Amino acid sequence: MSNNMTQDEKPMSNLSPLLEPRSVAVIGASKNVDKIGYKILKNIVDAGFEGKIFPINPRGGEILGLQAFASILDVPDEIDVAVIVVPAKFIPSIIEECVRKEVKGAVIISSGFRDIGPEGIVLENQILETAAKSELRIIGPNCQGVSNPQIGFCATWPLVENVGNVAIISQSGTIALEIPSFLSRNRLGYSKAIALGNKSDVDEADLIAMLTEDEMTSVIAVYSEGMKDGRKLMAAIKQASRTKPVIFLKAGKTEAGKKAVLAHTGSLAGNREVFEAAVKQSGGIYVNDLQELCDTAKAFSTCPTPRGNRLMVITSSGGSGILASDAGEDVGLKLSKLSDETVEALRNQLPSYCVIRNPLDLTGNALNNVQLYTDALKIVLEEKDVDLVLVIFGDPILGASDSLKELTDKASAQNIPVVVSFLGGADVQVLESEKLQKNGVPVYPTPGRAIKALGNMKKYWKIRKKESGK
Amino acid sequence: MSNNMTQDEKPMSNLSPLLEPRSVAVIGASKNVDKIGYKILKNIVDAGFEGKIFPINPRGGEILGLQAFASILDVPDEIDVAVIVVPAKFIPSIIEECVRKEVKGAVIISSGFRDIGPEGIVLENQILETAAKSELRIIGPNCQGVSNPQIGFCATWPLVENVGNVAIISQSGTIALEIPSFLSRNRLGYSKAIALGNKSDVDEADLIAMLTEDEMTSVIAVYSEGMKDGRKLMAAIKQASRTKPVIFLKAGKTEAGKKAVLAHTGSLAGNREVFEAAVKQSGGIYVNDLQELCDTAKAFSTCPTPRGNRLMVITSSGGSGILASDAGEDVGLKLSKLSDETVEALRNQLPSYCVIRNPLDLTGNALNNVQLYTDALKIVLEEKDVDLVLVIFGDPILGASDSLKELTDKASAQNIPVVVSFLGGADVQVLESEKLQKNGVPVYPTPGRAIKALGNMKKYWKIRKKESGK
Repeated sequence: MSNNMTQDEKPMSNLSPLLEPRSVAVIGASKNVDKIGYKILKNIVDAGFEGKIFPINPRGGEILGLQAFASILDVPDEIDVAVIVVPAKFIPSIIEECVRKEVKGAVIISSGFRDIGPEGIVLENQILETAAKSELRIIGPNCQGVSNPQIGFCATWPLVENVGNVAIISQSGTIALEIPSFLSRNRLGYSKAIALGNKSDVDEADLIAMLTEDEMTSVIAVYSEGMKDGRKLMAAIKQASRTKPVIFLKAGKTEAGKKAVLAHTGSLAGNREVFEAAVKQSGGIYVNDLQELCDTAKAFSTCPTPRGNRLMVITSSGGSGILASDAGEDVGLKLSKLSDETVEALRNQLPSYCVIRNPLDLTGNALNNVQLYTDALKIVLEEKDVDLVLVIFGDPILGASDSLKELTDKASAQNIPVVVSFLGGADVQVLESEKLQKNGVPVYPTPGRAIKALGNMKKYWKIRKKESGK
Repeated sequence: MSNNMTQDEKPMSNLSPLLEPRSVAVIGASKNVDKIGYKILKNIVDAGFEGKIFPINPRGGEILGLQAFASILDVPDEIDVAVIVVPAKFIPSIIEECVRKEVKGAVIISSGFRDIGPEGIVLENQILETAAKSELRIIGPNCQGVSNPQIGFCATWPLVENVGNVAIISQSGTIALEIPSFLSRNRLGYSKAIALGNKSDVDEADLIAMLTEDEMTSVIAVYSEGMKDGRKLMAAIKQASRTKPVIFLKAGKTEAGKKAVLAHTGSLAGNREVFEAAVKQSGGIYVNDLQELCDTAKAFSTCPTPRGNRLMVITSSGGSGILASDAGEDVGLKLSKLSDETVEALRNQLPSYCVIRNPLDLTGNALNNVQLYTDALKIVLEEKDVDLVLVIFGDPILGASDSLKELTDKASAQNIPVVVSFLGGADVQVLESEKLQKNGVPVYPTPGRAIKALGNMKKYWKIRKKESGK
């Protein structure tokens, strides 16, 4: 892809203005509520964007109470970012105007470029060449925009406003927005979401590098369909992984998937094994599907990095404990071996019907005695062989949330992730899960999903350990 | 396990009275709201049990407005089922009374038998020997009861009342109740749920045989920790699979899991590969975790058995289509090849920006034109190479539910399962998913989970095909 060389050779400019702009122009802003040019402008307004907003529409007038300009060249102010939603054929001249106006970033929503084949490639190259003469960086085209909910810069749709510490980089717009939606349903939030689409200029590596420096971000989740420059990506992941986990989902793994990738963003999906190995080798956490990506981001968003791979399971449901044991072995977690002191402390504290081993089975009697969970977790947190804890509530256990309340903070301080799986509890389960998550404790509907997330936390521990050993 | 021979050799008696009793005694019924003897009685009453209810408590009096008897021998009526919650040591004499009273089934909730080791085994054998002299069949001990919500016979906890066509057999009580809870959250229901615990007498094979004949049941979901008689199980699965799918989750697959099984119900978990092969060979659908069990049961509960393995994906999200393609290939689904006629019909009907292939990408423009889904699905249902359909809504698409309304019935009539994945839609997604599921269309949060369920439907098609070819 020699045509991109000028972009790739350009020294990595600061991408921050693209996601932390002080002013934004929406080129193609519209009064028609069905148009993306309306939805984006409205979302930026509704999110309470802190900077200046300039709708650009040849007809001028007012849109959503804001003065519209016929061209960005008419705007009597600096513009950090231009969000562009006009048809593809108009975009080369608009990019020329952006260069003249010294706009720092352009987010091109419109499709009709590399995604439609040869004639679109010509158009895409044209805007890249124009941009290459300046500092202008481009996100897209054929993308679903970007979002930074902290400053209300939600130049995408739907509007998802919950602020948190997970950053999302996704070639797919739907997935770029699904992860914030998922986090929101789980009472968590995101720091930045960037849909890359054709990623003609700014790519995953650029953004990972930027997000490595971003104090609002402590987890980076990536969905990608293919990569032009593997070494650049590996270097970026490697650098990021020193301070925050990079979770990576690669689409287009199979033959069927590769063909679909080409049809979607015109990317070459490349070889599955090579890609997986590259991500892992550079310290990224390679996941197999979107559910695992979301579940893992959720764990990292709320829990500290563990200090080892030894798992303690506390449960009231023997069956769920077995499922957790199976899943744990499958992902390479070791069940903690309880010391004689811990066994004795548990025996002294807990009723005789409890099965003092790992999984620790409080039995169905915990249904009316939620204090057993508090007592058990308190003792377990003193055990040196415990690095990660899965607490399983398997019954309609009222007070489940309160039973862990102070202990999860204590665990965090000790770098012990504590996650919950809640099942078999009908309405109480829904209620208590909600309370737990509001308190910052991640809850998973099955032990298997909880364990997969913990297994990925363990991988990150290994990466960090390897890194610090050098 | 020679001590069970008398039970195993007994001709398979009719188990129906155990789940369709006309009268039930709760032995150990209590006024204390914290006791299981209260909760079970209350759930049977609250569920509106159609038959007679007899609380048994040495103190007599009234419990929940019902006359209590000191012993079942005092009850002036026949008793079909006795649900027993008194401590283990009292149970041998209670079983003797049950035999004298000619009770047909005993559900023993109490633990303290094989689950606690040698001394418990002695106790368990004692009750089995007593029962063997009669027609009395035993579920449990150490189990969480049984439920038939259609007649309000909910002798378990929590109370889950939604009636449907999925039957659950589970050694774990939590999982026996989690599946109905899951179905309820997904606007579906269950026909019977049986928690087996130590399964001293009635086992999975007995229940599968009974449920094969049960007209209310069209899907059987099983969670098991180990099996005494593999051949009996295989025969039961084989017979059931002729008319309804048997989905099987086996816990205790790993070394860690096997140890946990022994601690839980005293079962021997056996060899993972042997078990998996046996289930598959007899026509069961072997799943790897609880999420897959639930997701698969959900698909079978609402969709017809497909007539082949060729998958059509209709999407507005290119990225999600790729994930579906990848997942499809992984589970052995083939992407349908569209005939020239279908391609032409789609080209004529759909706007030019749609990508006419499989996955069929309606693109982000579907956001304001949900009719595209209706048009596309209508044409796709006429294509002979389509056996299963995944519709992906990847945006906040209002009207998504209505767009499929009449077509899913048409698809069902043609034996084409249509399932949905909805993502990237924030609040609209939650709203429309709820509407879709109320209309009987299963919705999955990720394409991967939808495809796993469809992959298991495909397995069942193969099983049926093999069977009918004989």
